[in-house]
Amino acid sequence: MSILVVGTIAYDSVQTPEGSNNHQLGGSAVYFSLSASYFSKVKMVGIVGTDFKKQDMDLLKSHGINTEGIEISDGKTFTWIGDYKKDINQAITIDTQLNVLNNFNPNIDSIQFNSNHLFLGNFHPTLQKKILNLMSNNLLFTALDTMNIWIENTKSELNQLIKNVDALIINENEVKTLTNEKNYYKAAMKILKLGPKIIVIKRGEYGATLFNENFIFSAPAFPIKRVVDPTGAGDSFAGGFMGYLDKCQEINEKTLKSATIIGSVMASFTVEQFGTKKLSLLSKKDIYERFKKFIDLTKFNENLKI
Amino acid sequence: MSILVVGTIAYDSVQTPEGSNNHQLGGSAVYFSLSASYFSKVKMVGIVGTDFKKQDMDLLKSHGINTEGIEISDGKTFTWIGDYKKDINQAITIDTQLNVLNNFNPNIDSIQFNSNHLFLGNFHPTLQKKILNLMSNNLLFTALDTMNIWIENTKSELNQLIKNVDALIINENEVKTLTNEKNYYKAAMKILKLGPKIIVIKRGEYGATLFNENFIFSAPAFPIKRVVDPTGAGDSFAGGFMGYLDKCQEINEKTLKSATIIGSVMASFTVEQFGTKKLSLLSKKDIYERFKKFIDLTKFNENLKI
Repeated sequence: MSILVVGTIAYDSVQTPEGSNNHQLGGSAVYFSLSASYFSKVKMVGIVGTDFKKQDMDLLKSHGINTEGIEISDGKTFTWIGDYKKDINQAITIDTQLNVLNNFNPNIDSIQFNSNHLFLGNFHPTLQKKILNLMSNNLLFTALDTMNIWIENTKSELNQLIKNVDALIINENEVKTLTNEKNYYKAAMKILKLGPKIIVIKRGEYGATLFNENFIFSAPAFPIKRVVDPTGAGDSFAGGFMGYLDKCQEINEKTLKSATIIGSVMASFTVEQFGTKKLSLLSKKDIYERFKKFIDLTKFNENLKI
Repeated sequence: MSILVVGTIAYDSVQTPEGSNNHQLGGSAVYFSLSASYFSKVKMVGIVGTDFKKQDMDLLKSHGINTEGIEISDGKTFTWIGDYKKDINQAITIDTQLNVLNNFNPNIDSIQFNSNHLFLGNFHPTLQKKILNLMSNNLLFTALDTMNIWIENTKSELNQLIKNVDALIINENEVKTLTNEKNYYKAAMKILKLGPKIIVIKRGEYGATLFNENFIFSAPAFPIKRVVDPTGAGDSFAGGFMGYLDKCQEINEKTLKSATIIGSVMASFTVEQFGTKKLSLLSKKDIYERFKKFIDLTKFNENLKI
């Protein structure tokens, strides 16, 4: 099987307490795809400018990612400048230049149609909906991410979209804004009532919690002494989560719990270096070893006497 | 075995998004003792005024808590007024009346001397140190809690005390202030370098993380839809943690991990009602059933193929 991802492809410039890095490869589709590529075939849909570097395209291809759905348009690639110096958990946006994203109107060709899993990365809900409709005949599993700008400006469109996906993968603050609930559990229940079978709330350095009708599962974040750059951690989580699920025979309680841990494993690598530096250079062994560390981090004796 | 706890005994008045409750029984020693009483023998050392209600003393006794170390002094019991309406995770203190706490100069008599485990609840470090010195010959395990007021005003005294305990059980924000570190992992490592073998960082609705030289263990908080009153959750955690350890034959990786979960179980009950209302009315069955829910919440398949 394979996953189609639509999202941003960007050049980011970030400042963090550990330093700064200019014009690094980023964007939701990039982090998602690199992360998912360790588990599954990924097809990317997105847009870049003519400034997009060959070495960056080659990096994606070297991960076996199908880049045929990446449109190269006249103009510059989307750029984002963010500052985490004050709070490593919350970037302050210094500047956003949409550039070629202004012209993005993706079409899905026959190659991409083969995908059964779809990730709608953070983007305008109208575009997310268009992709969902184009793909809808073949889909087994669709997950959606979003962010405050869409929650604030296109809420009814977004709510409509949420009704038609299987999973919402979203930051804690954002789901609280979206549902107007201060309690994350109540917020999750409101989302499940809208339609999705699954909601995963990403809680940054506190981990991730998955809710569905029948169970709740909580994964810690891996303790990291030196968080170099948190950019892309959420999309790396989503990539690991969906990449692992795509690899499984079925989506059930067992595989969803494992996927939440794998998502957390992948996010933990991303934050250890600027941009995609660490995420793009992993081995299966690295991933498996960190997975085993999650077992040590969370497993306790189940047979104790009280 | 048994645990000696020294800490505050209070009448609290709280306002939360779920309502308000005046003059409810509280204080670090009370929450700790009630929580630990489900697992172990507890001896309380503290001070109350002549206004302390017989029904509250009876409640403690009905839990098998040894109250002989509670001094009844002329004057009023310590009171605290707190407001969680703005942020359920962080009370705003409206008023604190130390009252009889001003005269507190505890003495440990021969009965209390029998305890091998000691919990130094949040209090002036000078008093905590006095108790530690009085008890030091018999102790197998000592844990300490503190809060911002002591970190800010009595830091060197507090650091001296930390060197002489086995475990520090502390809120995340407070350990960051204490160590001047924004990263909780680095903060934990700094504390371990000072002397304690164990640090547990309480992270409120995000759970608790235990660090020692050889391992890290992370427990989620139990997802609660309606957090009525978070007062005492941290002390209930400490009570469950130490009560369970006191019951165990030895303190090792296995029992420390279980104790962290039991602490989280007990804290999860406390927040469901005002004050000690829920915490004081539990059965072993309630505790065991919630423990099993923590297994469901955290356990995942360890044999997956990546």
